[in-house]
Amino acid sequence: MKRRGFDAFITTRSTRYLSGTTAGKAVIVPLDGEPFLICSRLELGMAERESRIRRIIAFSSWRTPLMRGERVRFCEPWELIADCLRGLGSRAVGYDALSSETVRRMRSRLVASLRSAPDLMLEVRKIKFPDELRAMRRSARMAARGMRCVEECVSPGRSELEIAAEAEREMRLAGSEGTPFGTIVASGPNSWMPHACTGARKLRRGDLVVVDLGATFMGYASDMSRTFSLNAPERSERLIQAVKRAQGAGLSVVRDGATAREVYGRTRRVISGEGYLRYYLHGAGHGVGMDIHEPPSLAPTSNEVLKKGMVITVEPGIYVPNVGGARWEDTVEVTGSGYVQLTVLK
Amino acid sequence: MKRRGFDAFITTRSTRYLSGTTAGKAVIVPLDGEPFLICSRLELGMAERESRIRRIIAFSSWRTPLMRGERVRFCEPWELIADCLRGLGSRAVGYDALSSETVRRMRSRLVASLRSAPDLMLEVRKIKFPDELRAMRRSARMAARGMRCVEECVSPGRSELEIAAEAEREMRLAGSEGTPFGTIVASGPNSWMPHACTGARKLRRGDLVVVDLGATFMGYASDMSRTFSLNAPERSERLIQAVKRAQGAGLSVVRDGATAREVYGRTRRVISGEGYLRYYLHGAGHGVGMDIHEPPSLAPTSNEVLKKGMVITVEPGIYVPNVGGARWEDTVEVTGSGYVQLTVLK
Repeated sequence: MKRRGFDAFITTRSTRYLSGTTAGKAVIVPLDGEPFLICSRLELGMAERESRIRRIIAFSSWRTPLMRGERVRFCEPWELIADCLRGLGSRAVGYDALSSETVRRMRSRLVASLRSAPDLMLEVRKIKFPDELRAMRRSARMAARGMRCVEECVSPGRSELEIAAEAEREMRLAGSEGTPFGTIVASGPNSWMPHACTGARKLRRGDLVVVDLGATFMGYASDMSRTFSLNAPERSERLIQAVKRAQGAGLSVVRDGATAREVYGRTRRVISGEGYLRYYLHGAGHGVGMDIHEPPSLAPTSNEVLKKGMVITVEPGIYVPNVGGARWEDTVEVTGSGYVQLTVLK
Repeated sequence: MKRRGFDAFITTRSTRYLSGTTAGKAVIVPLDGEPFLICSRLELGMAERESRIRRIIAFSSWRTPLMRGERVRFCEPWELIADCLRGLGSRAVGYDALSSETVRRMRSRLVASLRSAPDLMLEVRKIKFPDELRAMRRSARMAARGMRCVEECVSPGRSELEIAAEAEREMRLAGSEGTPFGTIVASGPNSWMPHACTGARKLRRGDLVVVDLGATFMGYASDMSRTFSLNAPERSERLIQAVKRAQGAGLSVVRDGATAREVYGRTRRVISGEGYLRYYLHGAGHGVGMDIHEPPSLAPTSNEVLKKGMVITVEPGIYVPNVGGARWEDTVEVTGSGYVQLTVLK
């Protein structure tokens, strides 16, 4: 904040990261002093129970009787934020994700300058603390349990939706708070759509089936993909071998100090060598944390350098229309000398 | 658009609504002529298969070999959108949800004015077409199936997570594309937190258990809550009776031409009469559609008038610390003379 010239920062995207609760609408971080959690009256009880940030201010858009001891400001959230900033005497305020409407309204109430800095908190979040890594390991174990369940039930005659139903149930029973993205079970002609929607299609002999799923624990996401062959023809199964080799090549260079581009480059080289380059439709992976997609991106255009404590996916994919699609993905923690795979299929 | 003086509109929030596919990043709607769907190269195959909008333009942030017949622009998405607008000769462009970064970059490339209009598409979406109503009815039936499953398995000794696991599985098997919000199973001391996170807590005799869940079908969400008493004391069970009566009172005035405030007022009067007004922490409901929360809001501050073809929830809730919480919610379609309840628990 100091380097960017902010004396206060408003985050609406990293509220859980800073407070530990889903109850906050915004966190105001002054350069000096304690942060504030801004929440709706509806979520005040939860904020008081869960928030690490102890200065909690609640708003309600309408006047209504309150419970004994309940303190609520009757105003709109943006008015409350503006008042807090005025109280702090802030002059240069950064924010990550306020709508242009909100910014316009706040400007009418504040002498402070308001400047967008969407990456500030995301930069901080790239390197995980030990507590975060513990939560991410648990989240990854839940995803692996879901994938194990898929492995057991993926067979001709069952529908994509059924596979998703069983895997999601398994992750829930393992303690998952929910899925950080829509579970993908993409079979046959859906397999070459990287973001296919899971549907009623029944799996058939000869299909490739791409499954991409994740769990959530204490807000932390995990992400894992596998591709299954239901006695698919050899030219389809070759795709699976290629993405597995490409993932291995990418992972082989992951360590503190490696560039994201290098990881991508290794996966690309393998896929290119197999003649599939034009079917490699995406980057090699992405950071994971409280958001399913966080920096660093492992795209060829990325300027990121991997650091110890980052958590990333490595997930090359090949999508050949009318032949099949394959993706192989794990969530891994970057260490000084390499990586630790968090999504381990036992 | 005409009334607001726009000759083109960029939506990034209503792409599926306009195109029928999840593959689009943005839709550009010119005042005259055909719209464009902007998508990532990664999702081009899916867009071509699913999109109602036939003018599809794909971008890739990096140069890479393409498949035969594949047409992709190597640029950033905002550059592609700016180029399209220049091609259209647009002078006054509206948008609903572009980030301030994106707007700043596009301004540097365009002579057109760019103006935020977050509500424009949401206004259009308030009244559902017959096709949408059909999808919403199916989505609501899936939610009801999930709730039926909850009814069967909610009992002392089972955990909140287990209940959520079974209900979500049931909705998946009924065809749900996923949950439009995190399923809430809030038991005992969690029941008086309206947005509690489902956790490992085991249900106990004497608990109230608030369950709030929804399904998705063709992108359309449903939303339903019930409160179960596990032989809870009479002072807790009274809360359930009160929210049920309040919901009935709210629903009794729902029809084309009723005001949102009137519906809220009816629920409030019942809750107030029971002496629980200070524990009624939220509005009486909200519109539902492709987003789980859409206009019209049924808050006391709302100026909305209900119209035939709107789909709303009516969901009064009472949350008494150290006693219990209760919410009773259904998704209903507004008709000329009343409403049709879509979430019917058989």
